[in-house]
Amino acid sequence: MSAYPGPLKNLLDELKRLPGVGAKSAERYAFFLLKDEKADALRLADAVRAIKEDLTPCPECGLVTDEPPCAVCRDPKRDRGIVLVVEQPKDVYALEALGRYRGVYFVLLGTVRLLDGVDERQLDLKPLERRLRSGEVREVVLGLTAELEGDQTALHLAQWLRPFGVAITRLARGLGPGQRLADAPRSSLEDALLERRPIAPG
Amino acid sequence: MSAYPGPLKNLLDELKRLPGVGAKSAERYAFFLLKDEKADALRLADAVRAIKEDLTPCPECGLVTDEPPCAVCRDPKRDRGIVLVVEQPKDVYALEALGRYRGVYFVLLGTVRLLDGVDERQLDLKPLERRLRSGEVREVVLGLTAELEGDQTALHLAQWLRPFGVAITRLARGLGPGQRLADAPRSSLEDALLERRPIAPG
Repeated sequence: MSAYPGPLKNLLDELKRLPGVGAKSAERYAFFLLKDEKADALRLADAVRAIKEDLTPCPECGLVTDEPPCAVCRDPKRDRGIVLVVEQPKDVYALEALGRYRGVYFVLLGTVRLLDGVDERQLDLKPLERRLRSGEVREVVLGLTAELEGDQTALHLAQWLRPFGVAITRLARGLGPGQRLADAPRSSLEDALLERRPIAPG
Repeated sequence: MSAYPGPLKNLLDELKRLPGVGAKSAERYAFFLLKDEKADALRLADAVRAIKEDLTPCPECGLVTDEPPCAVCRDPKRDRGIVLVVEQPKDVYALEALGRYRGVYFVLLGTVRLLDGVDERQLDLKPLERRLRSGEVREVVLGLTAELEGDQTALHLAQWLRPFGVAITRLARGLGPGQRLADAPRSSLEDALLERRPIAPG
């Protein structure tokens, strides 16, 4: 017989949906929560609920926020002249953790659907268009993943952006830190060759 | 700045409490839930809540259940003459998955507190006592972990059980399947030597 009572079985099934979580990890998490203090475990339940109920996309850039506009768009010190276009909120968090970018963002929330082919109807570019029409944007940086889907999206966006007459750039590609040529993926090597830079004379 | 909105930060903190979940895994899970369909993510929140709100210890054996008494204690085919004492519900699930044990269980839910020293006041043995006094129990098998804490608990239970006049046994210890002597933990080798069994003559 299966000794798991229904609620425990359900929790195991839901945990197994998380990326990289198999039966063993799901059991480890579920048994931890089973032994956990009730109030502590319920805080996790509430935290999961809150990101779906209290977060909305920022009307200006699409980044998830609990008080629109988002913290970046609200910040008067950010340079509204540069807009970095990324695929997902987590791309923004990685860049903010770096702390070197002072412009604003535009998050393409629809990217998940790009698997079906690039289709402008699937990308809601209206907030970006409003920003471009305001006349304050000098440069749009495309920060899409260097993969088929990201490249297609970048191409599509570059065409879409042309009429606005702003500078269009993309993030640099090449070898990562410590990356050995012998181990580098073929496309990385290709990028590193194509985007080679002159060395300042000594 | 930290770009994480409050609710996302909270979720990351709660996920990091799960065993073996560091910052990277917490981010992977949180970003998955952020992109997940709302109804799907809320099922996880509800499943966590349900194991704390809908599960209670079985009044007979202590195993968590959503309809007391638990499925094992309810099963008329189980042999109430043998009671296997284990530390946690997950020990029961492992044994039930094996499908070779036909007796009933007693789950020592208080074991977590044994870190402070074995103290009978910390173990609620009343349901076990009721079973013993009913006269149907022939044997109590101690299935505690072969570690300091489990050994102390087993010793304490053996003393507590003596007046009831039932057979007291414990699970066998020794080398695991495929375990090489050279790699075996010292205590495993010791158990394997002490509990060596005669080989039937060929």
